[in-house]
Amino acid sequence: VVSFATEVQATDPLPSWNDGQTKQSILTFVEKVTTSGSPDFVPVAERIATFDNDGTLWSEQPMYFQLFFALDRVKILAPQHPEWKGKEPFASLLKGDVKATLAGGEKAILEIVMATHAGMTTTEFEKIVKSWIAAASHPKTGRRYTAMVFQPMLELLAFLQANDFKTFIVSGGGIEFMRPWTETVYGIPPEHVVGSSIKTKYEVRNGKPVITRLPELNFIDDKAGKPVGIHQHIGRIPIMAVGNSDGDFEMLDWATSGEGLRFGLLIHHTDDKREWAYDRDSHIGKLDRGLNEGPGRGWTIVSMKDDWKVIFPFEK
Amino acid sequence: VVSFATEVQATDPLPSWNDGQTKQSILTFVEKVTTSGSPDFVPVAERIATFDNDGTLWSEQPMYFQLFFALDRVKILAPQHPEWKGKEPFASLLKGDVKATLAGGEKAILEIVMATHAGMTTTEFEKIVKSWIAAASHPKTGRRYTAMVFQPMLELLAFLQANDFKTFIVSGGGIEFMRPWTETVYGIPPEHVVGSSIKTKYEVRNGKPVITRLPELNFIDDKAGKPVGIHQHIGRIPIMAVGNSDGDFEMLDWATSGEGLRFGLLIHHTDDKREWAYDRDSHIGKLDRGLNEGPGRGWTIVSMKDDWKVIFPFEK
Ligand SMILES: [Ca+2]
Ligand SMILES: [Ca+2]
Repeated sequence: VVSFATEVQATDPLPSWNDGQTKQSILTFVEKVTTSGSPDFVPVAERIATFDNDGTLWSEQPMYFQLFFALDRVKILAPQHPEWKGKEPFASLLKGDVKATLAGGEKAILEIVMATHAGMTTTEFEKIVKSWIAAASHPKTGRRYTAMVFQPMLELLAFLQANDFKTFIVSGGGIEFMRPWTETVYGIPPEHVVGSSIKTKYEVRNGKPVITRLPELNFIDDKAGKPVGIHQHIGRIPIMAVGNSDGDFEMLDWATSGEGLRFGLLIHHTDDKREWAYDRDSHIGKLDRGLNEGPGRGWTIVSMKDDWKVIFPFEK
Repeated sequence: VVSFATEVQATDPLPSWNDGQTKQSILTFVEKVTTSGSPDFVPVAERIATFDNDGTLWSEQPMYFQLFFALDRVKILAPQHPEWKGKEPFASLLKGDVKATLAGGEKAILEIVMATHAGMTTTEFEKIVKSWIAAASHPKTGRRYTAMVFQPMLELLAFLQANDFKTFIVSGGGIEFMRPWTETVYGIPPEHVVGSSIKTKYEVRNGKPVITRLPELNFIDDKAGKPVGIHQHIGRIPIMAVGNSDGDFEMLDWATSGEGLRFGLLIHHTDDKREWAYDRDSHIGKLDRGLNEGPGRGWTIVSMKDDWKVIFPFEK
């Protein structure tokens, strides 16, 4: 680790970030908390950084990627559920009408998740996710979903990891939807993934233990749920938190209100050419309160258009 | 890490373990899974070992140490609760009658936990636990509770950690009761502690975010709950699991039924001179099914009397 850290610091650890205040604020923070003897030094054990996923580490338009997964699952399962054709939110989802699907709000999303993410063992679900993520492609870019991660954020994760930070995902998305691929894509192992979940049950089938996924909500890791999820999984207050929407407000508030030097970062989607531009009025990734109150709390706001040289790894 | 691992392996990594089949089975397992090129080699990322706490890493007699904590809390809070003198389980607990206290079973324990572990912020509770663990002493030995950890298990934890295992606690005890001291005592950081929990709530008080502890059960991490807790927190099946009671049966079954080389270890309390001797009929740490079925499943059983040169660090 030491030699790698030295190596990346000798060159630019964040080559896809334009020089400027945003990049400098990150570099300064990491330098201060990792410099032994600095008044802001933080011991390795306490270097916890939490990252939202949708819209922070990868794109989330025209709808959360996990909803595309659910849609594909609904299509596969539809022959066994003829009633879905006349039943919301399935009817709209099958027609590909995102807006009507999401009109049912959290309840609609939950119904879709319960119908598509439960009823199998955890091992079976992991296989389903792995197959889908390896093969499915985004309707607009035609790329694999895992190719639509943000190159500057991959660099930030690697930079923090090289500086002995423990990087966690804390996402409103399903914990078991992320775990099968976060290690390969982000260098974040399953035990560092916190997310929403359904209940599971341990049972022995034909002498072999399995954990089955139940159609019952366990935890929603969003908004005020994020600090709760962080406390439950990590048991420490992060010194750095990164998000992109008002669903991350409480996480950033929790992380940056602790004693000592703290860092809050919000990704503002401002680039309608290379990615998407949306904020205060978006039905996905709404960012309003964060724009209003973030700067006053000392949070740094990334403008994707201005701060990032490239958005996706495939642009390089 | 590498130089330390080499160093401990050059000498005996488990000096408090008597030579014999038990010790050898541990050494052989670790050697096989860590030797590159071995058919049983396990990549570092998958070297997950889970440990029960009560009766596995420290003693649990004459009652779970967390119950002594609860008793002391009940004594402190009793003046505010005059009704407890006539109300079980508090009446028996205040009289120090362990058997009568536990006669109410899980329900009684839950009532005690809710009355003593909830109603404060997580930060306040952490301080309460830290003060107690630093000052309270065991009624029989007069030692600090954290002095009553098992020296051979400290060596096993250090040996595994030096071999790049991630060591987790997976305990029926309260997650927030353990986290304030497990890093110092076991080298296990808060994010590697899985346990039972009550619900918590995020709120902003006078502009400062806090997480408050609610008198409502969230999760019981015992029996079939252990694999569920492991799946929720770690998201991988451990390759090694260690326990001491039938509450660990499902955890060991889950860990050892996976593919590849696996290791199940049960600590059998057989030493009534240096510690306590109990198993099939004990109301704390009952070990019956594990003794019957463990050996047939290839699990190793530690006899504390025969396999351990010393039990507690203070004996050395
Ligand atoms: Ca987001
Ligand atoms: Ca135990």
